[in-house]
Amino acid sequence: MDPTIDIAIEHTHVRFADGLTLECGTHLPSLTLAYRTYGRLNEARSNAILVCHALTGDQYVAERHPLTGKPGWWELVVGPGRPIDTERFFVICSNVLGGCMGSTGPRSVRDDAAGDGSALWGIDFPPITIGDMVRAQKKLVDYLGIRRLFAVVGGSMGGMQVLQWAASYPDAVFAAVPIAAAAHHSAQNIAFHEVGRQAIFADPDWQGGRYWQSGRVPARGLAVARMAAHITYLSEKALTRKFGRRQRPGEAAAGSGFPFFGDIFEVESYLRHQGSTFVKRFDANSYLTITRAMDYFDLAADYNGDLAAAFRHSQTRFCLVSFSSDWLFPTAESRAIAQALNRAGANVSFVEIKTDKGHDAFLLDEPDFHRTLAGFLAGCREHAGLL
Amino acid sequence: MDPTIDIAIEHTHVRFADGLTLECGTHLPSLTLAYRTYGRLNEARSNAILVCHALTGDQYVAERHPLTGKPGWWELVVGPGRPIDTERFFVICSNVLGGCMGSTGPRSVRDDAAGDGSALWGIDFPPITIGDMVRAQKKLVDYLGIRRLFAVVGGSMGGMQVLQWAASYPDAVFAAVPIAAAAHHSAQNIAFHEVGRQAIFADPDWQGGRYWQSGRVPARGLAVARMAAHITYLSEKALTRKFGRRQRPGEAAAGSGFPFFGDIFEVESYLRHQGSTFVKRFDANSYLTITRAMDYFDLAADYNGDLAAAFRHSQTRFCLVSFSSDWLFPTAESRAIAQALNRAGANVSFVEIKTDKGHDAFLLDEPDFHRTLAGFLAGCREHAGLL
Repeated sequence: MDPTIDIAIEHTHVRFADGLTLECGTHLPSLTLAYRTYGRLNEARSNAILVCHALTGDQYVAERHPLTGKPGWWELVVGPGRPIDTERFFVICSNVLGGCMGSTGPRSVRDDAAGDGSALWGIDFPPITIGDMVRAQKKLVDYLGIRRLFAVVGGSMGGMQVLQWAASYPDAVFAAVPIAAAAHHSAQNIAFHEVGRQAIFADPDWQGGRYWQSGRVPARGLAVARMAAHITYLSEKALTRKFGRRQRPGEAAAGSGFPFFGDIFEVESYLRHQGSTFVKRFDANSYLTITRAMDYFDLAADYNGDLAAAFRHSQTRFCLVSFSSDWLFPTAESRAIAQALNRAGANVSFVEIKTDKGHDAFLLDEPDFHRTLAGFLAGCREHAGLL
Repeated sequence: MDPTIDIAIEHTHVRFADGLTLECGTHLPSLTLAYRTYGRLNEARSNAILVCHALTGDQYVAERHPLTGKPGWWELVVGPGRPIDTERFFVICSNVLGGCMGSTGPRSVRDDAAGDGSALWGIDFPPITIGDMVRAQKKLVDYLGIRRLFAVVGGSMGGMQVLQWAASYPDAVFAAVPIAAAAHHSAQNIAFHEVGRQAIFADPDWQGGRYWQSGRVPARGLAVARMAAHITYLSEKALTRKFGRRQRPGEAAAGSGFPFFGDIFEVESYLRHQGSTFVKRFDANSYLTITRAMDYFDLAADYNGDLAAAFRHSQTRFCLVSFSSDWLFPTAESRAIAQALNRAGANVSFVEIKTDKGHDAFLLDEPDFHRTLAGFLAGCREHAGLL
C-alpha cells in the first residue's frame, strides 16, 4: 500500500479554525470535516437529511468512491427515487471525526502546540467519543445554515450517532432513524473490537502507531481485525447460504494430499479478500480510535443510567429498525431503546425486519426495510408540512 | 516463553512402531500417544470410558496439570463420586494426534525419510482429520486390551471424535456421549478458525512455521487467535454477566483524559489474560493442524451426504447434550444428529441444558448436565450388566 495515495485525494471539506474541545478535555486547534451532499436544499432549509456512517464507512454515500472506484455505500437507499429521495431531500454525510477520508483524525497533520507542523497525529490523536463526532457534525450543519434537520439517519455506529443527535440537539432533529443500533456497546462487542486492536498491536509494522514515518503500514494486523469484525456483520445462516462448506474448485486437488493451509473453503477466501481490500482504504490508527469511541458509547450513563432521561420532552419522531438475524446489535437492543423512548413519552415506531442477512442487512437489498424507511419519511414529511 | 519447557516434561505415553497411515495418504513412521488413566480396569475389561478432549485440551483430565499447575480440565465431571465415577470406571484420555502434550504432532521429531532425525515436524506435519485422531486412539484402546469401550464421551471437538468413534467402530462403543458437538463444522466456525490462523501467519515470529529453529514463538499471533476463539466459547449473556461494561478501577483515571488503549474494560483485560496464558502451554503449529482437522470434519460427507448412514445398524446407546446458549455448536446441530440417529433406528436420547454459559458450559459447574450424564451412564451400566 502506498501510504500517500489517499492523502493526495482532495476531499470536499470545510475547516473550522476555532477547532473543537473534546470530551476528554483536549482542544483540537482546528477541525476539518470532509463531507458530501446530494440533492438541493430548499429555500426554507427544511429538507436536509444527515446520514451518519458506520465504523468503516465514509462520506461517499451515493456516488463512486474516489479511492476504491466502487459505488457509494448506500446507493440502494440514497438517490433519486430511493427511500431517501435526493429529488426531495438535501442529503449530507460527513466523514466522522477520527476517520481517514479527509476529516480531522489520526491521519491529519498535528496542529497543536506539541506538533511541529508537519508530523501526523497518528497514535497521539486524542481519544474521541460518539458525542465528539456529533458535535463536529453539528458545526457542519450550522455552517450549512440549517437550523433543524428534517431527519438524521444511520446504521450501526451511524445509529449511535443518531441517538446522540436526538439526545444532544432535540430541537435540531425532526425525525431520527437509528438502524441496527444500540444505546451502548455490549461486553461481547467490546471483546470483538479488542481482538481487532490486539491484532493491529501485534503487527510489528504498527511500530507503536508511528507507522506513517516508515511508510510501512500494519496491513496484516488490520486485515485480521477486519476479518474478525466481518464475521460479526453476517449471520451464521448468511455464511452458510453464501459459502456453506464449499471448497474452491481445483484447490483441494492441488499438491499432495489436501492443501491444508491454502484457500480451501470459499468462506476463507472471501474473508481474506475482505481483509486485504480493507487495508487499502482504511487507516489502522483510525480503526483504533473509532472502535474505542464505539466501546465508550453508553448513552444512559450520561443520564445517571436512565436512558429515558436522554429523550425527556423530545419532540423528535423516532423510527427504530432492527434485523432479526443481527447478533451484533440484536433486536433486544433496539427494543430497549423503544421502551426508553416510550417511558420518555416520545413518538416512536419500532420495526424488526425479518431477514437472515445479519447486521449488514442495513447495507443490502432489503425491500421491507426500504419500504419501512420510505414510509416513515413520507409520514414525517406530511407532519412537517414538507411538500 | 522458553520453548524447551514442555518438551522436557515426560508424559506417560506409548509408542507404536508401525506408525499410522493418515487419510491424506501420508504414512507416519511411528505414532506416540501420550495418555492418562484414572480408576481401575475390571477383570472383564468392560468398564472403560474414553474421554476425548477439545481443541485446546489434553490428557490431564482429572489431575493437576504438570505444565500449568492447574487442576485437571474436567475434574467436575471425572473423579471419585463424579458423573464419570473413577471408583466405577476406568477412564482413559489421550492427547490427540497433532496435539502438543506428548502425542505425535508438529512438535515431534520428524522421523520420516525427509527428516534428519533431529528436526521437528513443525509446519511439515501432514494434515490430519478427526478420523485420524480416532484411529490413533483405537490403537491405544487395543493396546490396553480393551475390545469394547463402555462409553466414549467428549465435548466440542471431543464430541466430534465421539461421533467418529461410533461411526467407525460401532461394535467397540457401548455408549456414546457427544456434548456440544456437531456432525460438521459450519461456515461460521471455519471463518472464526481462519481468523485465528491468519493472526498466527501474520506474526513474523511464526517464520513460515519454522519458529522452533529460532526459539522465538509466534506468541502474539497465537494469543490473538485464542482471544477470538474464546469469545465464541462464551455467550453474550455470560460476558455481560461476568464483565458488563465494568472498567478496571483506577485505570480510567490514569494519565490525561482517558487511557484509550489501556486495559480499561474488564472484558479486555480478561481476554488478554486468556491469550497470554494460552501461548505458554500451546504450540502454534498444533493449533493450525487441529483447527484444520475440525474444519474438515463432515461425517455425512463420508456417507454420500446421509448422516443416518453413518449409524446404520448401530447398537450404541447415544446421549446427545447441547446447551441453550451455545452459539458455536448450537442445539440445532445436536438436533440434526438426533434426527439422523432416529432415521438410522439408533437408541438415542437428546437433552438441551438451559444455561446462559455458552459453549464452555460443558467444562463448567452445570448440575443439570452432570445429572444427565450420571443418569445416562447409570442406565447404560444396568443394560450392560455392569455392576
